[in-house]
Amino acid sequence: MTTDHGILAPAWAATGAGGLVGDHALLAAMLDTEVALAEAQAELGVIPAAAAAAIRAAALPGNLRPAALAEGVRETANPVVAFVGQLTAAVDPAAAEYVHRGGTSQDVLDTALMLLCAAALDRIGRDLLACAENLAGHARRHRDTPMAGRTLTQHAVPVTFGLKAATWLHLVLDAFERVRRVRASLPVSLGGAAGTLAAYQQYAGGDVEGTLRLPDLVAERLGLAPQALPWHGIRTPIADVASALLVTTGALGKFAEDVLVLSRTEIGEVTEERAPGRGASSAMPQKHNPVFATLIATAARQLPPLAVVLFGSMAVPDERSSGGWHAEWQPLRECLRTAAGAAANAVRLAESLHVSPEAMAANLRLTRGAIVSERVNAVLAPTLGKAAAKRLLAKASAEAERTGADLAGVLASDVDIPPGLLDPAGYTGLSGPLADRAVTRFEEVFKECS
Amino acid sequence: MTTDHGILAPAWAATGAGGLVGDHALLAAMLDTEVALAEAQAELGVIPAAAAAAIRAAALPGNLRPAALAEGVRETANPVVAFVGQLTAAVDPAAAEYVHRGGTSQDVLDTALMLLCAAALDRIGRDLLACAENLAGHARRHRDTPMAGRTLTQHAVPVTFGLKAATWLHLVLDAFERVRRVRASLPVSLGGAAGTLAAYQQYAGGDVEGTLRLPDLVAERLGLAPQALPWHGIRTPIADVASALLVTTGALGKFAEDVLVLSRTEIGEVTEERAPGRGASSAMPQKHNPVFATLIATAARQLPPLAVVLFGSMAVPDERSSGGWHAEWQPLRECLRTAAGAAANAVRLAESLHVSPEAMAANLRLTRGAIVSERVNAVLAPTLGKAAAKRLLAKASAEAERTGADLAGVLASDVDIPPGLLDPAGYTGLSGPLADRAVTRFEEVFKECS
Amino acid sequence: MTTDHGILAPAWAATGAGGLVGDHALLAAMLDTEVALAEAQAELGVIPAAAAAAIRAAALPGNLRPAALAEGVRETANPVVAFVGQLTAAVDPAAAEYVHRGGTSQDVLDTALMLLCAAALDRIGRDLLACAENLAGHARRHRDTPMAGRTLTQHAVPVTFGLKAATWLHLVLDAFERVRRVRASLPVSLGGAAGTLAAYQQYAGGDVEGTLRLPDLVAERLGLAPQALPWHGIRTPIADVASALLVTTGALGKFAEDVLVLSRTEIGEVTEERAPGRGASSAMPQKHNPVFATLIATAARQLPPLAVVLFGSMAVPDERSSGGWHAEWQPLRECLRTAAGAAANAVRLAESLHVSPEAMAANLRLTRGAIVSERVNAVLAPTLGKAAAKRLLAKASAEAERTGADLAGVLASDVDIPPGLLDPAGYTGLSGPLADRAVTRFEEVFKECS
Amino acid sequence: MTTDHGILAPAWAATGAGGLVGDHALLAAMLDTEVALAEAQAELGVIPAAAAAAIRAAALPGNLRPAALAEGVRETANPVVAFVGQLTAAVDPAAAEYVHRGGTSQDVLDTALMLLCAAALDRIGRDLLACAENLAGHARRHRDTPMAGRTLTQHAVPVTFGLKAATWLHLVLDAFERVRRVRASLPVSLGGAAGTLAAYQQYAGGDVEGTLRLPDLVAERLGLAPQALPWHGIRTPIADVASALLVTTGALGKFAEDVLVLSRTEIGEVTEERAPGRGASSAMPQKHNPVFATLIATAARQLPPLAVVLFGSMAVPDERSSGGWHAEWQPLRECLRTAAGAAANAVRLAESLHVSPEAMAANLRLTRGAIVSERVNAVLAPTLGKAAAKRLLAKASAEAERTGADLAGVLASDVDIPPGLLDPAGYTGLSGPLADRAVTRFEEVFKECS
Repeated sequence: MTTDHGILAPAWAATGAGGLVGDHALLAAMLDTEVALAEAQAELGVIPAAAAAAIRAAALPGNLRPAALAEGVRETANPVVAFVGQLTAAVDPAAAEYVHRGGTSQDVLDTALMLLCAAALDRIGRDLLACAENLAGHARRHRDTPMAGRTLTQHAVPVTFGLKAATWLHLVLDAFERVRRVRASLPVSLGGAAGTLAAYQQYAGGDVEGTLRLPDLVAERLGLAPQALPWHGIRTPIADVASALLVTTGALGKFAEDVLVLSRTEIGEVTEERAPGRGASSAMPQKHNPVFATLIATAARQLPPLAVVLFGSMAVPDERSSGGWHAEWQPLRECLRTAAGAAANAVRLAESLHVSPEAMAANLRLTRGAIVSERVNAVLAPTLGKAAAKRLLAKASAEAERTGADLAGVLASDVDIPPGLLDPAGYTGLSGPLADRAVTRFEEVFKECS
Repeated sequence: MTTDHGILAPAWAATGAGGLVGDHALLAAMLDTEVALAEAQAELGVIPAAAAAAIRAAALPGNLRPAALAEGVRETANPVVAFVGQLTAAVDPAAAEYVHRGGTSQDVLDTALMLLCAAALDRIGRDLLACAENLAGHARRHRDTPMAGRTLTQHAVPVTFGLKAATWLHLVLDAFERVRRVRASLPVSLGGAAGTLAAYQQYAGGDVEGTLRLPDLVAERLGLAPQALPWHGIRTPIADVASALLVTTGALGKFAEDVLVLSRTEIGEVTEERAPGRGASSAMPQKHNPVFATLIATAARQLPPLAVVLFGSMAVPDERSSGGWHAEWQPLRECLRTAAGAAANAVRLAESLHVSPEAMAANLRLTRGAIVSERVNAVLAPTLGKAAAKRLLAKASAEAERTGADLAGVLASDVDIPPGLLDPAGYTGLSGPLADRAVTRFEEVFKECS
Repeated sequence: MTTDHGILAPAWAATGAGGLVGDHALLAAMLDTEVALAEAQAELGVIPAAAAAAIRAAALPGNLRPAALAEGVRETANPVVAFVGQLTAAVDPAAAEYVHRGGTSQDVLDTALMLLCAAALDRIGRDLLACAENLAGHARRHRDTPMAGRTLTQHAVPVTFGLKAATWLHLVLDAFERVRRVRASLPVSLGGAAGTLAAYQQYAGGDVEGTLRLPDLVAERLGLAPQALPWHGIRTPIADVASALLVTTGALGKFAEDVLVLSRTEIGEVTEERAPGRGASSAMPQKHNPVFATLIATAARQLPPLAVVLFGSMAVPDERSSGGWHAEWQPLRECLRTAAGAAANAVRLAESLHVSPEAMAANLRLTRGAIVSERVNAVLAPTLGKAAAKRLLAKASAEAERTGADLAGVLASDVDIPPGLLDPAGYTGLSGPLADRAVTRFEEVFKECS
Repeated sequence: MTTDHGILAPAWAATGAGGLVGDHALLAAMLDTEVALAEAQAELGVIPAAAAAAIRAAALPGNLRPAALAEGVRETANPVVAFVGQLTAAVDPAAAEYVHRGGTSQDVLDTALMLLCAAALDRIGRDLLACAENLAGHARRHRDTPMAGRTLTQHAVPVTFGLKAATWLHLVLDAFERVRRVRASLPVSLGGAAGTLAAYQQYAGGDVEGTLRLPDLVAERLGLAPQALPWHGIRTPIADVASALLVTTGALGKFAEDVLVLSRTEIGEVTEERAPGRGASSAMPQKHNPVFATLIATAARQLPPLAVVLFGSMAVPDERSSGGWHAEWQPLRECLRTAAGAAANAVRLAESLHVSPEAMAANLRLTRGAIVSERVNAVLAPTLGKAAAKRLLAKASAEAERTGADLAGVLASDVDIPPGLLDPAGYTGLSGPLADRAVTRFEEVFKECS
């Protein structure tokens, strides 16, 4: 046994995400699957109701020995063979016959993994919504707070912090909608040995209609969606989960990367909450590191490569592949807990982010007007011509930078500039109305989901 | 200039996919974008109608010098600065002022890339549907053709080739639906220097409502979806394209990998079409290689890693990042042409696939009955008990394999086996009804899209 | 706490690889690092010898509370701040002052991870050599055992199983040499807060020479290589480990993928050992799955994407990045245990692989001579011309395939074929001498390392 | 045909890297390979000298029709079958017989790709050395220029710019050494249809020794290393190239990411050269973007995922795989030109980087002493105890930050601080001697390679 406390996993350490998909949760989901199968078969009259009850009674985590299951993985390339053995041994002998009847390893493991996906996506969805709520607050409060817009690391034109927060919010809502959609589509997996349901049918005395209904009954009991076809070899459900998680960590990663830039010592426009010990260094007493942003950025770096394994496992031969299916399990778990950790940390980051309009204002003044040279260009272009205006402004900006003078002053010798034209706060464009759009979208989503 | 004929790109060589996203198509799309912007501004009264007409008149690929655009990329990190210069130089001087008015590089390049996505996804969608139609034919024709189901490379239980084709069909329809959904959602990109639309508004004399409508008008002219917010820093549209393409090559890759296995010399259940030169070797006269399947398998291997770059570029700081945005372009192009090549080759593979029910029947007999031992197990379990039955059958199977005897014969000494129980053709489970489901799904999709 | 028994990790379950890099091993390595640092400082006279002894006495895993360390990760983005606190609390108060003196979190964690790399690479090296030894045995025994060479899934020309095994052997030796090289180069990491060693120097009363020697002394005590520069921001050591592991799983993956093909039911040229329960199915009594090959193939699929994170973390800003460094830890651990698991399973696969020269011979006859048509071509070309000969043979091969006749018979009507020319066993080329080369290479490596 | 000017490829546009591995270079390398093979066979007496001369005479790019080769890729899954046809048609009929004698497609394509690798690695090596020379200059000039060290985006302790440049230099030298090592090891590829050299031997009248020498003779003529075994299925050479390229873009990416941070508007410690048009924006006249750093950062983002395909292609079955081998070509080309572009841009970045010691000094003062609180801690710890000192300093730093006071002033009320202790320039640790180490390493490498 290896314990994994998350000491090397900043993406999800201490967020509770580890437990969502840990061995305990997995085994519980596998037990739930066997119970649901037995009960559905009982409902169809394929096995005695008493047998299903006995299986439910024995389906306790305490009846399993996880270390032996890991041994079993090395014996049979999956844990289900040993798992069925352990479960069967725990069941009342009169009912043992009816455990896993007609089932195959992939039925149990795929279904159990879908249950883990459901739990993780539910939590991610909740956290994304909580994060969005906080971001909507920032977007509202700072709808008109001007700050420097930055492109390719350089001051570009002004924006508002409200629009910045709205950008994050929009991304988080994109993630939320994808998570919600895929959550609702997670299918049960029931195919039997090679996806024909043959053994289930055999045990059902050849009954076609009943056997076709069996997967639906199992799905209902487990809160999963029905399957269209057995999907041992149709891995779209896994790919869809991966896509939703990628958008999740991508969205939160954008938020985090922006926070990391804005909280740089020289910029200081946002700061993570100060709390005792938070962001401390082992060496430097003055340090107050942006911890949540770092943890989320970590998650965003890790997820895309992990997801490659999942997408890659779509293209494998046979009714069940040797290696493709098996390669999905650990990366899927890792993707789920990484994204869930990121979502949990994003709630904390969003709710505790300290914003400094003063620092934003100070930074806006740094280029002494050059940050609105695009505007001046637009004003001068109609008279000077666009190219000439741009040349004039490039020259003036360079001179202002070299001499430390204000752009307005440098320009004054060449052209007439209306007063206020170089005030950055006056050139935030449609930041406000655009921020409103994201807030409105949030409100609609929130109403629908609350 | 580097010419790229596709000599090193089996994934898309000679499929026409290269041209869909080549430099010529890109420049045409960039020109279309500038024209649509000018015309929309003219419609709003921001620029003279004559200026828009002059811009349209000058927006000819022949007015561009691509090599100088590549030089421009190294000067300014994107081709748009040089492109706008070249276009402006070609426009009637009286209208030159109005080119790219208020625009920023990312507006033009992102919108143009969406147009390339649209063209590629349209073609991929058509090819997926054509492929699906052929696969539906196979599923219908071979609904009840028994063959060996294989798991972990070994014969498992029988399936039908109809179910196999239905599996491919279902995957292709999954891909088709995702491609269609994302195609409909491809947004125009218009934000101005930092996503506030400020310069557009400035040139529009401060008009808020008109400026908010501008992106919608451009979108309409280009056949793209409206944008909710400017998305320079909200890369969900790229992620969604990547997800749809991943499902596409994953789905087609599964089809290809199955064909590669089934066409192995020792298996021979399917064969690619024989045509002069097709599948020839430079050395071995007898060779008839599965070429289309190989080309598709190549595409399926290449796409997931390429997509990592796209997902990774979501999580970058600033209103426009330095490196994240830039890293998207070439991989996006590569993903589009790789997936489009795979779809084109999949049509050919599906339409020309030769199926051999005889080889399937012969292979089904290879294990002399062991392929239905699961069924025998199900029959014996009620009397012998599941575990005892499984032990008996494992022993009998091993003995049959060792001695070359039929499983039925070996078992006869121990138990009574009903006649016909070991006929593989009698144990294909619900292969037929399940294949029907996929065909029905195809018919519904086809009706809706034709 | 999440326990991870490896139930979802076929790549390393039950191989012991999990424990090599588990939390317990990590904490032990972190303790070793602090002890080595204290003792080296004592040797330099920077701290009292008694303090170093007290630190060693307290450096017991039992003094640590791992769950609190995980909490600490979420507080400070790394476990070291909390770890130093716990260790300090356990040390004799008189020596507590001297714990982690001048150190920074990255010093401790990077060094500890190098110790984990060392342990894992040592084990991987041993297993690769054991695997190579078994493969050398196959290469010797089957130096001249003919079998079908296969390209693009089709029979091409004959090879020998000895050459096949030699190919695997050569790859394994490639991996071994890279693992050994990188093992020898694993450096200690000591830089202090920003890589200047300033605090170490400060505590050493400004001593330049002593402080420059400090990392070497720590390295010696830990069995690591010296560092050239502090490498907090120079991640070549991690990249080198990743490269060696990639070659390891790539090499073993080739071996596994070949075994998977050769053990297909229709091919049957090799089989994994039969042992009770090994390769069993939960459903099908007759199943004997190639388990070790599947486990190794799983590892080979998982490693390359994981390594992307490691290579990607080279390109990050600052003296220590926010996210780049943190993103390395879990994937590095995962890469190490995945590769170590693959190596352990490869020993088992190589030592127990059953080879069937009979099946090889039978398959060689499958194409009734066409597998040597290249040879016939070479014989006929000088008289008929290469192109004409190739056309003749392509036609004859196709006819032979269609009619089920022998190629020799079909050709006899057109040309004179010397007797024996179409015997596959006579056309294995230089398989034998080439196999010898790999065996000789193994013997040299083995002699050097034993 | 698709022309690819690099318009979407900032990583290598206009650097000349595209041409190194373009179709023209590839075809030239394929022709060189066929010529070398013929001449080596002539040397061994296997074909007439006149035939080799005729093949050389016809081996002109003008004799090839690339578009038809791309068509050929779709017919036979590789371009060599069509290529050999075109070459044969161009050769004097008397010698046509001797073209590609005994050869297989993979021999020609793998060898040609190794020639492309050689050309690209040669150029990358030269550029890395030129970049290193410039970085060594920075490291020498700024050996003792103090600046803020930054960790997790926050000021940590002082470093010198010399050490920063030394860090980049060290990385570049790491890359250089790996590139040089792998360049020297690039092997010829000659195996014949399935790696047994059988057809070469057949045409050589069965000659074993001569046939074993043939690959060495071809390698010599092409300036490649000999092969140990035919490596159609042993892809270590490709993996080694990938590893070296990954370290290259990782190293240069670190340099670029640091430049991007240091050239932020608020930081301004380094600036890329100002040149007309360089770094211009299409919208904002004042913009001076860090272009070379952006281009290099782009390359560093793209390479790791591309390399995944290459490592993934190691683990494929058969003497030649269907899809694995084919998937290597385009990503290998892309990796080569991406890394070569990055190296070319890094020369420009390093040679033209403007450094501002004034900005560094100003930023060092930003925290008013807190940047040396680690030092104060070290000084106070012996008297106050480490933990108490750290608490005191954390409190004082926070107060200084809140009030805008100097740390020294705040501390003065509690403790005695020696004058000068809080001068950042006095706490750069061993930055100087460590920078010297990297410079010395450069000088040794440079001497050896000049």
